[in-house]
Amino acid sequence: MINWTVLQEALEEGHALIEPHIHCTPVMTSRQLDKMVGGALFLKCENFQKGGSYKIRGALHAMMHLSEDARRAGVVTHSSGNFAQAVTLAGQLLGIPVHIIMPESAPRVKRVAVEAYGGEVIVCESTLEAREAAAREVIDRTGAHLLHPSNDLDVIIGQGTATLELLGQAPDLDAVICPVGGGGVVAGACIAARGTALVYGSAPFAVDDAWRSLQSGRIESNQTTNTIADGLRTQLGEVNFPIIRHGVKEIIRVTEEEIVASMRLLWERMKIVVEPSSAVALAGVIARKEAFEGLRTGIVLTGGNVDLGALPFEGSVPALSDPEG
Amino acid sequence: MINWTVLQEALEEGHALIEPHIHCTPVMTSRQLDKMVGGALFLKCENFQKGGSYKIRGALHAMMHLSEDARRAGVVTHSSGNFAQAVTLAGQLLGIPVHIIMPESAPRVKRVAVEAYGGEVIVCESTLEAREAAAREVIDRTGAHLLHPSNDLDVIIGQGTATLELLGQAPDLDAVICPVGGGGVVAGACIAARGTALVYGSAPFAVDDAWRSLQSGRIESNQTTNTIADGLRTQLGEVNFPIIRHGVKEIIRVTEEEIVASMRLLWERMKIVVEPSSAVALAGVIARKEAFEGLRTGIVLTGGNVDLGALPFEGSVPALSDPEG
Repeated sequence: MINWTVLQEALEEGHALIEPHIHCTPVMTSRQLDKMVGGALFLKCENFQKGGSYKIRGALHAMMHLSEDARRAGVVTHSSGNFAQAVTLAGQLLGIPVHIIMPESAPRVKRVAVEAYGGEVIVCESTLEAREAAAREVIDRTGAHLLHPSNDLDVIIGQGTATLELLGQAPDLDAVICPVGGGGVVAGACIAARGTALVYGSAPFAVDDAWRSLQSGRIESNQTTNTIADGLRTQLGEVNFPIIRHGVKEIIRVTEEEIVASMRLLWERMKIVVEPSSAVALAGVIARKEAFEGLRTGIVLTGGNVDLGALPFEGSVPALSDPEG
Repeated sequence: MINWTVLQEALEEGHALIEPHIHCTPVMTSRQLDKMVGGALFLKCENFQKGGSYKIRGALHAMMHLSEDARRAGVVTHSSGNFAQAVTLAGQLLGIPVHIIMPESAPRVKRVAVEAYGGEVIVCESTLEAREAAAREVIDRTGAHLLHPSNDLDVIIGQGTATLELLGQAPDLDAVICPVGGGGVVAGACIAARGTALVYGSAPFAVDDAWRSLQSGRIESNQTTNTIADGLRTQLGEVNFPIIRHGVKEIIRVTEEEIVASMRLLWERMKIVVEPSSAVALAGVIARKEAFEGLRTGIVLTGGNVDLGALPFEGSVPALSDPEG
């Protein structure tokens, strides 16, 4: 049994704790998108968050809960994406040493960025074994605390603060939808919205382990992770799965084409830069329009970190746009 | 002599007139950009405006000042860019017929967009003579009012409402900077900021007619308009030039490389989609940093209509970003 009341209290406390360090990101609306889905959409713009994604919330929350001794020893995590940025920024804000394990395939600029903010980067081969060996080496050497990007209750509660804010900024929401990869932000949404709004997840068909896990009742894996939504090339864990299993109404699956089309809508119509993972959530609403018709739906736009030199758009000029209208 | 008091009264009245039909767009800030220039920047996000640019302000203001008879006869203008969108949207909002003259080189989707909103498109050769002949034909046929995109006092006053709002949203600004092409938005800024803040213009070296006009004291022309800032491939007129001449502190010129670099900063760090013309204003501040050091400077980000399939960015991944921070 999940004790939602205890989790919700921890969420409120966690929000108060991290609030001074994060942005309360704006919620945008668009009459054009509303018309398209036949309901009212409220877009929580975590692409405007520090570090360019919601991940700073979970990183800060987990790191602020470390003991004095643990803070001194530091934190180690493995990520070449948004969580690496988030932990590095949080480490700088809190004065906690951070060690980031990155696969050798990670772009050099990501490594440079972490080092510029005072983090240590450990490069290893792109295998689970090499990653775990590298983490053990860091822990042995420094005593650092291993922080998982999504399968950690303190991280999950931190990520839930995005939805908590959204529910306050856009009152009377009927539903909230988040992309599902590792499961941190959607599990956090389940805690935040429990008793208030339905929670939906959205995931690429290409990494539908969460969808399959809900069907089978146990954690399923992905054989491949071939999706443009690079933030979702991960998988559920045993900490967030029970929360998702009991908190999520439905996980919607979307195609790669639907992800790119939604990303383009957000860029062209809303004039905001979002990453493919964020577009997965909007794509889910559009793909299952009938579930959201006539409702007030909050969408967590998770981040905006993209490689501008490698965008998925093909040529053509946008139609008449009305970003906020 | 320019009677600034009369113009400022007209601006206040004009703002009250169009306010119900437009968005009061947000003003964004960025500690990263502030650090970069050594001053405080306030970005007025007209890329979030209806039609994706500030042009709806001038179009609405001018069209709302037409007599009943003139409204029935309609409006004709020549544009394949933001002003075409703006006049079309304003026509739809006000129930005024619109005729848009576009060069045959304009992308087909722009034509389709105007027609989808009920406007008539007249395609003509890409020469001044053909354009004027096409306008005369429309006027003879319909009695439509010819509306110039920037060299019209009602349009200028409408565009000035962007700066008027900005001065209210970001109090105690020392300076305001706008891109200069046709000169509408910067002339409007001169009216709005007169007696309050210094007004700067920024223009590509490739279309520096405004800079040369300030030097010589008379309207100069461009021999070529070879700049990525497509919204600025126009030129000053005799209505806005005196206002700019007496109202602008300095026009700063920027290179194409500086425009693309500033555009990339706005996309990567602020996570907003802006068109090259908007980036010209930020590029001006960065190029003349010493003029803005220690000041509070407002920047009018004029629009966000770009072809996502033809972006000027080369590959690479952004460094640690902090969009609002």
